[in-house]
Amino acid sequence: MNDSVKKQLEQFKRGADEVLVEADFINKIESAKVLRVKAGFDPTAPDLHLGHTVLINKLKQFQDAGHHILFLIGDFTGMIGDPTGKSTTRPPLTKEDVAENAKSYTQQVFKILDPDKTEVVFNSTWMSEFSAADLIQLAAKHTVARMLERDDFNKRYTSGKPIAVHEFLYPLIQGYDSVALKADVELGGTDQKFNLLVGRQLQEVYGQAPQVVMTMPILEGLDGVQKMSKSLGNYIGINEEPNEMFAKIMSISDTLMWRYYELLSFRDLGEIETWKQQCESGEENPKNIKVKLALEIVERFHSKQAADAANDAFVARFKRGEVPEDIKNVTISTDDVYPIANALKDAGLTASTSDAYRMIKQGAVKMDGEKITDKSFVLNKGCECVMQVGKRKFARITVA
Amino acid sequence: MNDSVKKQLEQFKRGADEVLVEADFINKIESAKVLRVKAGFDPTAPDLHLGHTVLINKLKQFQDAGHHILFLIGDFTGMIGDPTGKSTTRPPLTKEDVAENAKSYTQQVFKILDPDKTEVVFNSTWMSEFSAADLIQLAAKHTVARMLERDDFNKRYTSGKPIAVHEFLYPLIQGYDSVALKADVELGGTDQKFNLLVGRQLQEVYGQAPQVVMTMPILEGLDGVQKMSKSLGNYIGINEEPNEMFAKIMSISDTLMWRYYELLSFRDLGEIETWKQQCESGEENPKNIKVKLALEIVERFHSKQAADAANDAFVARFKRGEVPEDIKNVTISTDDVYPIANALKDAGLTASTSDAYRMIKQGAVKMDGEKITDKSFVLNKGCECVMQVGKRKFARITVA
Repeated sequence: MNDSVKKQLEQFKRGADEVLVEADFINKIESAKVLRVKAGFDPTAPDLHLGHTVLINKLKQFQDAGHHILFLIGDFTGMIGDPTGKSTTRPPLTKEDVAENAKSYTQQVFKILDPDKTEVVFNSTWMSEFSAADLIQLAAKHTVARMLERDDFNKRYTSGKPIAVHEFLYPLIQGYDSVALKADVELGGTDQKFNLLVGRQLQEVYGQAPQVVMTMPILEGLDGVQKMSKSLGNYIGINEEPNEMFAKIMSISDTLMWRYYELLSFRDLGEIETWKQQCESGEENPKNIKVKLALEIVERFHSKQAADAANDAFVARFKRGEVPEDIKNVTISTDDVYPIANALKDAGLTASTSDAYRMIKQGAVKMDGEKITDKSFVLNKGCECVMQVGKRKFARITVA
Repeated sequence: MNDSVKKQLEQFKRGADEVLVEADFINKIESAKVLRVKAGFDPTAPDLHLGHTVLINKLKQFQDAGHHILFLIGDFTGMIGDPTGKSTTRPPLTKEDVAENAKSYTQQVFKILDPDKTEVVFNSTWMSEFSAADLIQLAAKHTVARMLERDDFNKRYTSGKPIAVHEFLYPLIQGYDSVALKADVELGGTDQKFNLLVGRQLQEVYGQAPQVVMTMPILEGLDGVQKMSKSLGNYIGINEEPNEMFAKIMSISDTLMWRYYELLSFRDLGEIETWKQQCESGEENPKNIKVKLALEIVERFHSKQAADAANDAFVARFKRGEVPEDIKNVTISTDDVYPIANALKDAGLTASTSDAYRMIKQGAVKMDGEKITDKSFVLNKGCECVMQVGKRKFARITVA
């Protein structure tokens, strides 16, 4: 392996959890051909946050290196809906829904990827031509035992939770997408590893060189513990306002900051390592480094001007005492769930639970920046969040 | 339940292994409507023997009672071939193959069933219209855990033998056939019970009254032990010559004769019971009863004249000493397999093993009426067969 290949390999592997199989990857890099790099996305209405961008950033890196990006929208299964008929909330998507969601998706994704160099593809293109007989042929290429090796299937099977037979077909269809697209590389979250490997195996069965599988880690949310997720409220949306985005990044812990640098920043790894050492030796204040991260991220989704303005606004609010330099950490214990009013009182954010109810009613309570209006809201065990009452009172609450 | 329903129920249940669910069956009989009675058959080239006719006789019984027979040829999966690609001997059947096999099938079956009252259907009619999406919807109606409850799947899974995913789809397709045909009753061998019950379950999912499942036992071959099968050589083909057929029936043991009466004869159960008692008390010679069975079966597949002629021929051969009245029973022991030459010698049919080789070379050795030409032929442990050397020497050999 020459130095150029070695360097490319190192850069591509940055932040990745696993590369399977590395030898194949080296061969593909050495071939110097334009690689077909696939990543699959749900066809549901998306509202992307920084967690999603870990993978999209990796696509961007391949794109900048001259490779061909296949942005796959898995609309075929989405248009089937929930075939168990159990979920009334998952009606089948129509062609129009899919087109609209895809448009919204790409509008967001093209804040990172270059639209002119990104091929958006839909698996309904080939799957809607598939007959039952074709699907049987496909299903013959994999065994039940191997399917049951998948972590979640295994857990459900051994614990007696039902797995419908069609759930075994979905990984095969996802794998077949790699065959249809002749993918050289497929990216996915670590939770997708099994499915990505099915693609690798099916390509071999269909006489293609197996794709390289690259899994990207799941990004932690603002709490530094749970995965970033809209429903957990610990997220930074890529459509958020510059000031909000800036402030949220400034609220993360120093430890989480280094994680975000690894997975979200495009800065040179050597530079980041230097800063880390400077912070550890006390030569540099981590807060200054966090400002650089906040500036980089806001600039990416807005502009340099917006980022600088957000920084100025943050400094001004900070000077006015509106943002605490260090948020106090409070851990509360429960066997079950923790009602919000009790949490606010116990964290010292309100004088009493009735004071807490009043604050909620006034719209003065926020959890990770989101207003809480339901006074029966509860915090789940394991939850970590930043609670805010009014403009100045903050606490990072951990429910243990 | 009135007497008429009770009597019908009793007659339909004759010889059946299980009826699921009997209460449903009673309701259907009581409704007095014409029932749609389904039985499925492989689309492979058939050579029917009496073992197959157990089920066909039951169809005949439903037909005679005025019900509608759906003779289903499962050609859809046959036309896919072996999708694992492992078997080179199972190429996909063409439409022409299927049509030819079906013709040969029905020619044989119509020796029992009335062609004018039998609807021959092919599941490719509806399954070839099925899309991959339709099949996914179907697969969603059943769980992996329930599939793995099927005996053979369970054994293979627990012993680490591979089950390809598409094998889980076949019972669903077979079950869906019942939906497509709106079957009221489905007949099958006991080994088909699981698949028949899938049909029952799918009909409920698709809003139909679930079919009654009736399983018919697997008929033992001439040896009285193993199932009747062409490859085991212990069979009576329905296209066999009258004399051959007659002689084979006369060769079975008295115990097996009563089993054949139950499953193959159309005679009244009371009459059979009377004969049985007479034989047990010594009032009647079982051989005479066996002649009645042989006459009935030969007449069914040939004619009354042919049956009488076969009887006469048999008596003549018997008088000339060409058929022993009682075949001697010989049990030989082995840990593994028993070479045929040793078996012939040890059963006293040849003077030595070299004599046995000579007889095989001359074409003078038959096993259950089939000529043995391979001198390296072996008898497996558990095998029971009638060995014949020349015209007069017979022995029923059991390898224990």
